[in-house]
Amino acid sequence: MPEPVSALPAALQREMAALLGDGWRTDPGERLTYGFDNSRREALPDAVALPRDADCVQALVKACRRHGVPLVARGRGTNTTGAAVPVAGGVVVSFERMDRILGIRAGDRCAVVEPGVLNGDLQSALAPHGLFWPPDPTSAGYSTVGGNLACNAGGPRAVKYGASRDNVLALTAVTGTGDLIRCGSATTKGATGYDLQRLLVGSEGTLALIVEATLRLAPAPAARRAIRALYRDVASAARAVARLMAQPVTPSMLEFMDHHAVRLARDVGGADLPGDAGALLMIEADGDGATLAHDVEALMEAARGDGLVSLDAAGDEAARARLWAARKALSPALRTLAPGKINEDVVVPVSRIPELVDGVQALAARSRLPIVCFGHAGNGNLHVNLMYDPADDAQRAHATSAMAEVFALAISLGGTLSGEHGIGLAKRDFIPRAIDAPTLALMRAIKAQFDPDGILNPGKLLPP
Amino acid sequence: MPEPVSALPAALQREMAALLGDGWRTDPGERLTYGFDNSRREALPDAVALPRDADCVQALVKACRRHGVPLVARGRGTNTTGAAVPVAGGVVVSFERMDRILGIRAGDRCAVVEPGVLNGDLQSALAPHGLFWPPDPTSAGYSTVGGNLACNAGGPRAVKYGASRDNVLALTAVTGTGDLIRCGSATTKGATGYDLQRLLVGSEGTLALIVEATLRLAPAPAARRAIRALYRDVASAARAVARLMAQPVTPSMLEFMDHHAVRLARDVGGADLPGDAGALLMIEADGDGATLAHDVEALMEAARGDGLVSLDAAGDEAARARLWAARKALSPALRTLAPGKINEDVVVPVSRIPELVDGVQALAARSRLPIVCFGHAGNGNLHVNLMYDPADDAQRAHATSAMAEVFALAISLGGTLSGEHGIGLAKRDFIPRAIDAPTLALMRAIKAQFDPDGILNPGKLLPP
Repeated sequence: MPEPVSALPAALQREMAALLGDGWRTDPGERLTYGFDNSRREALPDAVALPRDADCVQALVKACRRHGVPLVARGRGTNTTGAAVPVAGGVVVSFERMDRILGIRAGDRCAVVEPGVLNGDLQSALAPHGLFWPPDPTSAGYSTVGGNLACNAGGPRAVKYGASRDNVLALTAVTGTGDLIRCGSATTKGATGYDLQRLLVGSEGTLALIVEATLRLAPAPAARRAIRALYRDVASAARAVARLMAQPVTPSMLEFMDHHAVRLARDVGGADLPGDAGALLMIEADGDGATLAHDVEALMEAARGDGLVSLDAAGDEAARARLWAARKALSPALRTLAPGKINEDVVVPVSRIPELVDGVQALAARSRLPIVCFGHAGNGNLHVNLMYDPADDAQRAHATSAMAEVFALAISLGGTLSGEHGIGLAKRDFIPRAIDAPTLALMRAIKAQFDPDGILNPGKLLPP
Repeated sequence: MPEPVSALPAALQREMAALLGDGWRTDPGERLTYGFDNSRREALPDAVALPRDADCVQALVKACRRHGVPLVARGRGTNTTGAAVPVAGGVVVSFERMDRILGIRAGDRCAVVEPGVLNGDLQSALAPHGLFWPPDPTSAGYSTVGGNLACNAGGPRAVKYGASRDNVLALTAVTGTGDLIRCGSATTKGATGYDLQRLLVGSEGTLALIVEATLRLAPAPAARRAIRALYRDVASAARAVARLMAQPVTPSMLEFMDHHAVRLARDVGGADLPGDAGALLMIEADGDGATLAHDVEALMEAARGDGLVSLDAAGDEAARARLWAARKALSPALRTLAPGKINEDVVVPVSRIPELVDGVQALAARSRLPIVCFGHAGNGNLHVNLMYDPADDAQRAHATSAMAEVFALAISLGGTLSGEHGIGLAKRDFIPRAIDAPTLALMRAIKAQFDPDGILNPGKLLPP
């Protein structure tokens, strides 16, 4: 039998092994697989816990609190900010065994789930009821609802349906004291006490561990159609975005690519795009089959304007897939620019997109690094990709300082650090630029009420 | 010159008179007019402050904190729970002089306002931009945006567009320490730190005083049409509500009246309603003129089913007004039942409406008091009106105990105390039935971080 090499107190280890059985893991190899996330950061936890229910989570937190051991909640580690990396060691709490859908109530437009259910599995279970849960991060197939809630995950559909925070009714969670709290109710309206459930959403496991969620569902649209609009330049496309958001038909997706992204998708990705396109919008409408044509026409009308180069609506799903090909070709093509990428998801008011893209391009010129912008234009949520060679010290330094300038630019335009990825470790030190001192002090004070000993995901979100 | 009879320390009075000029009022007659709200409760404040800007509010709060004097934020006093009544004396802070619309940005779908602007004045200013702010309480013409936010006001449109909390992007507020905090950003997505702005919404002035709000706007629909559906009984109508909410076309309003309400609207209000109608739904669709007919047909199809007595769609605005006449006739007709009314706005999951209405009618029989239910069925948010004679001690006692049973019933059905009116004084003592002890303890702890001396609206929302 291999000796445990974990640094945890033996008493805690014995207690947890008794509580969790094979859901308590201390083997170094296994711990390693729970120590990283999609930020490419990693750290070795002292143990991994796989609780089966809320009682287990409470017992686990109380025991860790007694021993002063940190806890890091984990869905499937898809987040991009290091929020799931156990930088202070301690116990990673993986919710993979709490993955049940406890109820789907179509007439109430809600579902009750455990945190470990995969977003994609939930969508599959909802489909026969004609319902869906709006958050659709790229990782939907393999990220958990609990992780989506912890990070306030969004995705393209957020422009019409909102992000995770907009689609939660109630949460049950275990605080850093091991108390079970029940926040909100399974109703679409509520004015009873303080709204703690939306406070927990986006708190990245620093306030409490979510053990059950009552989710707000939306009726699944019967049909959807995509439109591809190409513009002479970014400014023309950005003006079109503002027109699209000022008219009554809200698109179900409104995605943007700057001229670098368009060129990459064409030259490297092989997408069918004309040479004079300086910016691209992918616009999608969803709704009833009988009214969709009208909605598509309204969106096309709003897309028309100075600088429009071409406008195509997909006639069917195959044509829709062809239109989306340019967007899908982009991520692999990016890698041809440089081996390293810093992908930041700053957000600005929609009307400030041109200034953001202009500022980023001026910065690219100054720092001599390629910067490619694309993302969820309808929310002003752009993914700014700084491409660099991590093996080149000068480039790495330029990339790091350029990233800081991108944040400063977004904030100066009335925006903020993150639209949907969150803060984690990656943006933690920039929080004081986005949040002023009294507000940040209040956030720390609130954190101390949920987690007086600071054992929940220490080092994340709030700067030290 | 009349001597001030206020109980406030003379030093505070001098300081505030110097700061606020004629915006500092201590005349007893004038104070009286700021001491009540629509709950019919009243209490005399020691002074009334009419600040002109956030700096004034900060100075006021800091001075009151030094002297341990309570502050009660006030919009126009339309709330129904006593939340604006200064039961502990102190200073009522009326925001009537902070009523400017600071900006309307159509492309960003947002408006920046001071808290004292009237909801109706904001809607008028937004109309030329083709936008509106979704909250539409009955009081919209004469209630303030700040008051709407403080109480998380809803209204019929919430079924499609959400309530106040769903339609705020950022808030600037002054805490009980006099600190100015800036929460959120003017973007429709955000994953940057804890969501304090939605925590402030519905906190009834107990955490901070809102001095500026950035509101999320929705595009104004070009057209709307109403449908009136009459059912044999409440159960049939409730099943129709569940069908309506399970299909893709979300109604822009979905209002319910029980058989007492229908009878009153007909016999007393003079509405044109058949004698065999045991429940009524008013269903409204809004959208583009070209697609509205389809949406209306989809809603009518969902409204059809067992127990339907009649189904009418309005052809034009005049017909729409005729259909709504029954709903509008109701409030005056209620007064014929008894001089006193307790109007509670409990909320339950939509599928539990039949049990709520059945339980309430059983309670009416037991307590020998008429109870009339109507309200926002699409959100499960019913207004339960207990009618009684306040001059009759026995009736008053019955009404009070019946109210407690209504709350217990709503909670047992998975609902909660209030959907849109809030807690204030009226429901404060029932909070421990709706919110369990650890969660309530956390709410108190959070309150203490915003307001360590407990000077902001003491006695409200949280039970002593």
